[in-house]
Amino acid sequence: MRRVTFLVLSLALLAPEPSRAQGQLQVAELGACPLESGETIQDCRVAYRSFGELNAGRSNAVLFTTQLTGTSAQIAGYIGSDGLVDTTTHFVIAVDAFGNGVSSSPSNSSAQPGADFPRYSIRDMVAAQHRLLTEVLGLSSLHAVMGISMGGMQSFEWAVSYPGFATKVIPIAGSPRLAAYDIVLWETSLRMLAVYQETGSRDASSALFGLSFLVGNSPEYHARMTPRDSILGILTRLDGIPLPTPIAHNLASQVRAIVDHNVAAPYDDSLERAVARVQADVLVIVTVQDHVVTPGPALEFAELLGAQTVVLPSDCGHNGLRCDSEQLSQASQDFLAGRE
Amino acid sequence: MRRVTFLVLSLALLAPEPSRAQGQLQVAELGACPLESGETIQDCRVAYRSFGELNAGRSNAVLFTTQLTGTSAQIAGYIGSDGLVDTTTHFVIAVDAFGNGVSSSPSNSSAQPGADFPRYSIRDMVAAQHRLLTEVLGLSSLHAVMGISMGGMQSFEWAVSYPGFATKVIPIAGSPRLAAYDIVLWETSLRMLAVYQETGSRDASSALFGLSFLVGNSPEYHARMTPRDSILGILTRLDGIPLPTPIAHNLASQVRAIVDHNVAAPYDDSLERAVARVQADVLVIVTVQDHVVTPGPALEFAELLGAQTVVLPSDCGHNGLRCDSEQLSQASQDFLAGRE
Repeated sequence: MRRVTFLVLSLALLAPEPSRAQGQLQVAELGACPLESGETIQDCRVAYRSFGELNAGRSNAVLFTTQLTGTSAQIAGYIGSDGLVDTTTHFVIAVDAFGNGVSSSPSNSSAQPGADFPRYSIRDMVAAQHRLLTEVLGLSSLHAVMGISMGGMQSFEWAVSYPGFATKVIPIAGSPRLAAYDIVLWETSLRMLAVYQETGSRDASSALFGLSFLVGNSPEYHARMTPRDSILGILTRLDGIPLPTPIAHNLASQVRAIVDHNVAAPYDDSLERAVARVQADVLVIVTVQDHVVTPGPALEFAELLGAQTVVLPSDCGHNGLRCDSEQLSQASQDFLAGRE
Repeated sequence: MRRVTFLVLSLALLAPEPSRAQGQLQVAELGACPLESGETIQDCRVAYRSFGELNAGRSNAVLFTTQLTGTSAQIAGYIGSDGLVDTTTHFVIAVDAFGNGVSSSPSNSSAQPGADFPRYSIRDMVAAQHRLLTEVLGLSSLHAVMGISMGGMQSFEWAVSYPGFATKVIPIAGSPRLAAYDIVLWETSLRMLAVYQETGSRDASSALFGLSFLVGNSPEYHARMTPRDSILGILTRLDGIPLPTPIAHNLASQVRAIVDHNVAAPYDDSLERAVARVQADVLVIVTVQDHVVTPGPALEFAELLGAQTVVLPSDCGHNGLRCDSEQLSQASQDFLAGRE
């Protein structure tokens, strides 16, 4: 065992660039990150993990963006030969979004902690990721950008904001901008968070988790899968989930970015004009009964672009992508490999 | 004109019992209403309005129960020749449920105001209505009981608690007991109400109205009908709806009754045993995309009973019964007239 460890260390020392251990957390210090609001994230840090190896032609890099409250560590669960992207052929960069507690966030900023953290947008996340790739990792292009939910929102933003950068874009259960229903959902969540932040009431945090239960899967899914007998356990769980104040700040900041999200905002709110910028091949994947990120705007974007779509058919809803995981993985891997 | 008025007054004076003006509010004083909890509603009042005329055989009376926060005055909007029940052939008694602010409620009880009002059940509402009919109105049977939403829950309870009383029962968008999803929905609402009652935070009341928007119609309905452009108006409306404290008490008390609702509770939680008691012809009407009172338990009740069902097909959801209003009215009137 000691000999193996020594061998690995030696190889690492001999490598032209130090080869990071697979999936190890790395942090890019970007200095100041200017935001489209005019404000700045000071001591701006963007964290990431990489999986697989960059090929000699630097042509196999895939950026995988995080979902709401998600981290690059969790992306590991989505990748691999039976996942959404095969790391034997692709170099996956899983990137932590602002506000997730790993990259710059209300919870970890010394200069701008808590409520002092500036309001940022999905577009700001993507701009910082572009700097990470170009300034730190020396990449001038990507094979693909992909992500789920808020990661899908970042993917749409990548396709519009940096049209020549990624060859392929796969937004999964994401949105180019929110439908009216979705805005009410997130605004309602923000009001619950505000009450929680004002009062610390556990009823407020329980209600927030209750809401996420109600929309996370479809009512039809619950009718099939969640027996009435289990309800006491569900309620106990809702009431037992702690929501520490720093996490509430992070969550509120990301939810605000989701509500504000609109790839068309810089183009007079014209989705047509935003779509006209796109150069990548885009595969839009949605779930038909998604009650968190409703599929309408993503499908509208796909139709305007003439992009491929995959509509996952189950009634599991937003949190139930795993119900269609085989179809999802197959579609993603085929598209990344050009087998579509 | 004066002559006609005089004629009407004369006829009224000559009638054996004074004929109440159509739809006028009347209040039955029931003294004490014992509750299944062991507590009692003191100075118990059950309010009602009647429409149409009781026939000589006393065989055309239809009890119409109220929905959450609904009143007998609002029932007027559901009845008539193009409504759910024709008042030219039926004598409709629209009855105010406990907690609606008209019958005994936290908001209007002198002896047990606000939080001192005892916890009551749907079964308690129905028991008081039975007393109204038998002790005050002198009825020993009904042609039918019907109601929408919480009114549908009362209808199911009538069918089980007083099996020989009504010939027909029509629960519309109601439930014999709640599915797991529904319990989480109402428990989440109760937590929001509790925060509002503790703190008076407008964010809490806004979140409550936001939740009702999200589940009141299906996401697909909103995708079709609610444009993104309208969202500012929706949010302004959510934030502008006042929720006076007495109304919050009433609402919480009725929501608690809904969460507790279970026609099978007195029968070892056996829906089979509860259904075995039913003697009425039952027509169960549900909406397929109902996300407030999900249709599963109502359809299970119908299947156990071998009852007729009407599944309204639109995607409008619980608050969108009017999307299927023609089919709904036709089904109800045909069933009441024995034309099914």
